[in-house]
Amino acid sequence: MTLSDDQRAEIADLRAETRPTLRPTVPALEEVLYEPLSVLDHGFVRVIDYMGDDAAIVQAARVSYGRGTRKVLEDRGLIRYLMRHWHSTPFEMCEIKYHVKLPIFVARQWIRHRTANVNEYSARYSILDREFYLPAREHLAAQSKSNRQGRADVLPAEQADKVLDLLREDSERNYRDYLWMLNEGSDGKPADEGRAGLARELARMNLSLNTYTQWYWKTDLHNLMHFLRLRADPHAQYEIRAYADAMQDTVKRWVPATFEAYEDYRSGGAHLSRGALEVVRRLLAGEAVDQAETSLSKREWTELMALLEPGEV
Amino acid sequence: MTLSDDQRAEIADLRAETRPTLRPTVPALEEVLYEPLSVLDHGFVRVIDYMGDDAAIVQAARVSYGRGTRKVLEDRGLIRYLMRHWHSTPFEMCEIKYHVKLPIFVARQWIRHRTANVNEYSARYSILDREFYLPAREHLAAQSKSNRQGRADVLPAEQADKVLDLLREDSERNYRDYLWMLNEGSDGKPADEGRAGLARELARMNLSLNTYTQWYWKTDLHNLMHFLRLRADPHAQYEIRAYADAMQDTVKRWVPATFEAYEDYRSGGAHLSRGALEVVRRLLAGEAVDQAETSLSKREWTELMALLEPGEV
Amino acid sequence: MTLSDDQRAEIADLRAETRPTLRPTVPALEEVLYEPLSVLDHGFVRVIDYMGDDAAIVQAARVSYGRGTRKVLEDRGLIRYLMRHWHSTPFEMCEIKYHVKLPIFVARQWIRHRTANVNEYSARYSILDREFYLPAREHLAAQSKSNRQGRADVLPAEQADKVLDLLREDSERNYRDYLWMLNEGSDGKPADEGRAGLARELARMNLSLNTYTQWYWKTDLHNLMHFLRLRADPHAQYEIRAYADAMQDTVKRWVPATFEAYEDYRSGGAHLSRGALEVVRRLLAGEAVDQAETSLSKREWTELMALLEPGEV
Amino acid sequence: MTLSDDQRAEIADLRAETRPTLRPTVPALEEVLYEPLSVLDHGFVRVIDYMGDDAAIVQAARVSYGRGTRKVLEDRGLIRYLMRHWHSTPFEMCEIKYHVKLPIFVARQWIRHRTANVNEYSARYSILDREFYLPAREHLAAQSKSNRQGRADVLPAEQADKVLDLLREDSERNYRDYLWMLNEGSDGKPADEGRAGLARELARMNLSLNTYTQWYWKTDLHNLMHFLRLRADPHAQYEIRAYADAMQDTVKRWVPATFEAYEDYRSGGAHLSRGALEVVRRLLAGEAVDQAETSLSKREWTELMALLEPGEV
Repeated sequence: MTLSDDQRAEIADLRAETRPTLRPTVPALEEVLYEPLSVLDHGFVRVIDYMGDDAAIVQAARVSYGRGTRKVLEDRGLIRYLMRHWHSTPFEMCEIKYHVKLPIFVARQWIRHRTANVNEYSARYSILDREFYLPAREHLAAQSKSNRQGRADVLPAEQADKVLDLLREDSERNYRDYLWMLNEGSDGKPADEGRAGLARELARMNLSLNTYTQWYWKTDLHNLMHFLRLRADPHAQYEIRAYADAMQDTVKRWVPATFEAYEDYRSGGAHLSRGALEVVRRLLAGEAVDQAETSLSKREWTELMALLEPGEV
Repeated sequence: MTLSDDQRAEIADLRAETRPTLRPTVPALEEVLYEPLSVLDHGFVRVIDYMGDDAAIVQAARVSYGRGTRKVLEDRGLIRYLMRHWHSTPFEMCEIKYHVKLPIFVARQWIRHRTANVNEYSARYSILDREFYLPAREHLAAQSKSNRQGRADVLPAEQADKVLDLLREDSERNYRDYLWMLNEGSDGKPADEGRAGLARELARMNLSLNTYTQWYWKTDLHNLMHFLRLRADPHAQYEIRAYADAMQDTVKRWVPATFEAYEDYRSGGAHLSRGALEVVRRLLAGEAVDQAETSLSKREWTELMALLEPGEV
Repeated sequence: MTLSDDQRAEIADLRAETRPTLRPTVPALEEVLYEPLSVLDHGFVRVIDYMGDDAAIVQAARVSYGRGTRKVLEDRGLIRYLMRHWHSTPFEMCEIKYHVKLPIFVARQWIRHRTANVNEYSARYSILDREFYLPAREHLAAQSKSNRQGRADVLPAEQADKVLDLLREDSERNYRDYLWMLNEGSDGKPADEGRAGLARELARMNLSLNTYTQWYWKTDLHNLMHFLRLRADPHAQYEIRAYADAMQDTVKRWVPATFEAYEDYRSGGAHLSRGALEVVRRLLAGEAVDQAETSLSKREWTELMALLEPGEV
Repeated sequence: MTLSDDQRAEIADLRAETRPTLRPTVPALEEVLYEPLSVLDHGFVRVIDYMGDDAAIVQAARVSYGRGTRKVLEDRGLIRYLMRHWHSTPFEMCEIKYHVKLPIFVARQWIRHRTANVNEYSARYSILDREFYLPAREHLAAQSKSNRQGRADVLPAEQADKVLDLLREDSERNYRDYLWMLNEGSDGKPADEGRAGLARELARMNLSLNTYTQWYWKTDLHNLMHFLRLRADPHAQYEIRAYADAMQDTVKRWVPATFEAYEDYRSGGAHLSRGALEVVRRLLAGEAVDQAETSLSKREWTELMALLEPGEV
């Protein structure tokens, strides 16, 4: 993560002074408020603002005049009940806003989650920074044979070198040519007086998809948990998972009781299909069950057996 | 508005103590935070929480690391620019949460605005309060002849009396029968031991549409302004307009620069159709224009002429 | 269900003539197109239009130029894969539009699903029909003691009679008074010349919540399945479940392969929490497990044991 | 636009045969159904499916049992009324689905419209085609000085040549290196046996933003008109406007009465701010008005004067 001194000063400025409020506050989240949490090589996630806390969920669920119960144990019980029964509206009553710096190809996956507000840094107005994502060697993996959207083994060192060279050279050349086409000097005049600069909205098309962009992204807690469940999952692409992991830490600080319930009833659980449920019932009844005489495909069977292994957490 | 002593105490409790926060705060809005603002005979609007302020809009528009400009005049200029050019995403970066008590028929109009989060008091779980909306005499108007969804003159006193009697009697009888069917004593036992109580989810169907319900309603500033523009409009039904008016006051406290821009570029302006624009051009060119030879219908012509009257504000 | 002769004629007219189209068509759904499927005492669901079929899901998933595979077995396999892995966007590519007649209190539950388009019959413009929902005796149940939002045993005959009398009398009186306040004759003149009619937008507040309303409701297949999963569930209130059941039949006609996958991977399956999964693993490993030494509450334990019963389907 | 023979055959196949349906059909739209309408150098827009027509809007607005009026003139009148009064729900009852091939940087602008369903060709699963957008010379414009997001004059021929060379060379090199990293032979084996291929989800990051992608995009008529109003506007970037223009033609075929109303009340009209309206009133009252003593900024004044010019259409 590379922040300029000005940017660091701006952040320090934001953190320099507190103001009094009647709203609920969450000291554990205030501790990291505005602070960039490093993700990938140049990216970050920063919590910019938040609304509500665990008690606000209880308060909304009860449509209360006051703060809800104020008894932490009762609040926790209700939150677990709401999570277990898939209530969504009380969790929608909490909101969080992030500033994220991320490679464009990650941004394109992320934006598929439509129930959020997004304000992206515009390359029609402004010039993007000279920053590209280059994977760490341990993430440079071969294409999986068995899973069309997965990764297999890490590339041998020599091949990894070659790939990194290509990624670096192509990104840098494309960025250099982007600047050349823009032809903008620091003083607002053309860098090269003899020619016009290409419109920013056109020049940007020369950038590669590993170029970093930034946005403000705001969503409610219910939709955030849905995002995290999909994107912090081992099947998600590593690069977006790295962001989801950093965000999970902020959610844990923000609404600890909700996060615990989320781990128990969402991310830590599993959905069994009708056929899988039938297999489990037969196994528990002491029957010897063979995949061939169930409704499960071979892949479903293998996944179910792995899920039911004692060691699995 | 009728609050119980317990409810008043809960609200006082919320307002008793401030906590320090690094987030932006808005003292003018904190002044009324949690306070019920009276609407209609038993309803209210209370601001429960808010996220962001005028500067947060600027900050999001710039995808800033810090607070944006801190120069109020520059911030105001950018906010006006964004409003004038129909930018929506920076305004979506502010969020507000209300607790609203409102008649069911108003709730049914309100809920048509789908881009908000809602948590309503559930009559499947709980028993609704014995409160019904009875219009003030000056709002008891006859059906308009010219406008199928409008009101005309106020009813004569005697007829108004009769209408109010019917509304009151029917609401009260329906509520009384609702309680009878529920048959719930204050101690959790049946009020009348000799018979079972009807399930709450069924008994509620006997209530009339002027019965009050409550909900938590949360939305972002962009969608709120859209709601207010439609519902604080003179063509909106009086009852929902009363809520929109109360909410406009809270928006003015919350984001004064945005509210000013909203009045200048949204609620205070007007959309001219292609045909209306053509008429204005011809009038300004000194032409005498007759409705019959324009593309406007009679009603459109009348409305345009009224809009262009010097006195109109 | 009560349709006027005019309404029946209009529907017959719609069904009288086919037109040629290049779009995909679903004969099994065309069979019931426009036909009102009876629900509750006066309600119905009618399919008004649809877009897409099972093959359209495959086509979208592949972003194809043509129809997808045209091999039914391969299509079915991909649909099951998409459902099993919680892909949503291909299912969003099919759309369906219903005309529904339903009691207002059911409409209020239904509208909580926001990802749909709704156009409701407006009581600001028009006069509602004289139709109220009166439950059949076998659905007049007592309030459950154990579950605050549930029903218990059916009421004894005599008590049911009394409840039905109250519901009927109150609905009829409120409707009669609604008409009196409106004072609209069939010829557009006041029924009673001597007095003004109350504005429709006001008079409607006197109606009870079991009065029938109508709307056009349109949604995509992904959101429809989410709606059905929640509302065709045994925990849903009977009255909305009756609508969901009728709609499930139309989905089965429309997209049979998708509906089969939905039953296998959604409605027929179950979500196990982290704790429940741990219990299942221990049981399968031959351990004797006692509720007290698990992380499950008593209620969770009871529900899990019921789910794992061999007889359960 | 470059389609393979297979793709052309698939499309011809789709257009070869009609099927009977009871649903409303629109012959003028069926004429171009499935046909790719060329946009930019390699892009296209194809209508894949549609639901509803002009009459379906009327039918929904009336919550009808039958087809609505069947009188074209009456339907047109109601559609104009609905458009003029900003009713949105009846227009949401029509739906359309497109297959679009477009450069990634255009896709990134487009996706900001969230109220649509999108299924994009996935570069995690599949290999993108070797196709890049290279602007025609007449669209290679310099950056505007006065408008930070606009274009000014077209580049001189020699500079345009240089820019096009850079864009072409960089795109081609990046694509070549993408293929090298993938190392996939046509037979599923590595092209180069001696090394592993990089995972597709990683290799794609080397592509430049002018590479073409594809998606299925489905939306309702209300949201489509909102999209077109913003994106077919002269202030929109030329490249996305080219798509919006092609789509406007399909809307005109599909719902001609609605499209006419859209041109009269939306795209052909203008919104006047409170200050602008005041100026118009004063001018019409014969007053000489000077910008300095109005509430308008210089830019607002200039824009207003241009709008009121007689020649303007």
